[in-house]
Amino acid sequence: MKRETRIPNATIERISLYSRPLEELLNKGIRVVSSEKLAELCKVNPAQVRKDLSYFGEFGVRGIGYAVKNLLSEIRKIIVSDREWKLAIVGLGNLGMALVRHDNFLKRGYRFVAAFDSSPRKIGEMIRSDLVVQPPSKIHLVISELGVEIGVISTPPSQSQAVADMLIEARIRAILNFSPIQVRHSGPCLVQNVDFTVRLDNLAYHLGQEG
Amino acid sequence: MKRETRIPNATIERISLYSRPLEELLNKGIRVVSSEKLAELCKVNPAQVRKDLSYFGEFGVRGIGYAVKNLLSEIRKIIVSDREWKLAIVGLGNLGMALVRHDNFLKRGYRFVAAFDSSPRKIGEMIRSDLVVQPPSKIHLVISELGVEIGVISTPPSQSQAVADMLIEARIRAILNFSPIQVRHSGPCLVQNVDFTVRLDNLAYHLGQEG
Repeated sequence: MKRETRIPNATIERISLYSRPLEELLNKGIRVVSSEKLAELCKVNPAQVRKDLSYFGEFGVRGIGYAVKNLLSEIRKIIVSDREWKLAIVGLGNLGMALVRHDNFLKRGYRFVAAFDSSPRKIGEMIRSDLVVQPPSKIHLVISELGVEIGVISTPPSQSQAVADMLIEARIRAILNFSPIQVRHSGPCLVQNVDFTVRLDNLAYHLGQEG
Repeated sequence: MKRETRIPNATIERISLYSRPLEELLNKGIRVVSSEKLAELCKVNPAQVRKDLSYFGEFGVRGIGYAVKNLLSEIRKIIVSDREWKLAIVGLGNLGMALVRHDNFLKRGYRFVAAFDSSPRKIGEMIRSDLVVQPPSKIHLVISELGVEIGVISTPPSQSQAVADMLIEARIRAILNFSPIQVRHSGPCLVQNVDFTVRLDNLAYHLGQEG
């Protein structure tokens, strides 16, 4: 990575979160938003919003706020979601199918261009007009041919490490792992493990505080 | 627990993340872990681990590390995952079914005790030996009777706000919303919106940095 890594990862995640209400404001035709309002919509404090955005330059106008359209387009440039990313998914059980059909992926430029499953029952199935399930043995070939950049793993936990290894061998650049075990890896591939229960832990903590 | 709430939310989330590799270490029979090793497993820096844990008291032994079993049980007390929480799920499409069947929920004490869907085709279906799909009209009654504390929304976006309103009216204490729109709410109910694409944005940002 070339950049000085002084921007905290938490800032990157929040920047991405800020874009969600901005999308809604834009759809409603609202042109300007204050850091206070944006903070309220995102449930962080206004100083945090201003600090996070200041890492990337001066977007706001003091006393007025941010131009919604402009701020959204700047955020998309920062998080590089102003282009299309090619995704492959491995594992087409309930979770995999839910991910492929989830509106937000394509809306935000994440396009599933390949799908793999080891079940003979699934192989050959057309899960979208442009997406046919292929066997894992094709992972290497398809990923190179299509230039897939991000792999999404939604297999049972027993298969996820092997699948990660195959994706990494195929020189995928990043993996988003939804299976309930942490995937181990080395080398330049970026890996994010998604764990739904972390969110529940957070709710449980706050409920516990309420007594 | 009535603690001063000066603990940052990011610390709470990391504390919960720390518990995942600790579970694996415990399963492997490893008894002690250094803050360096734990930090490496969680991809944060060791000073962060020590700082986060210091909010809750002195767990480590200087020069030795943390007792895995002890630290894990302390973390579970902190995030109140040392007890069982009762969950209801609304929306049993692919995502809802995946969530109900996801190993990690029950493993971490989150038990689905009620399930709702508006589709006549789903109502009455036994999705687990102890879980039958009920119509949304039963939400209020069932949640009070069973003492459900956390509602999980996995409906299509067009229904999620109405479902959230019903859950809140039934005096649920917290909501985890997986539908792709942010749910609006007021009052004491805690709401977390889960957005899968935030993780992808994070990967995209780092890939963009690599060029």
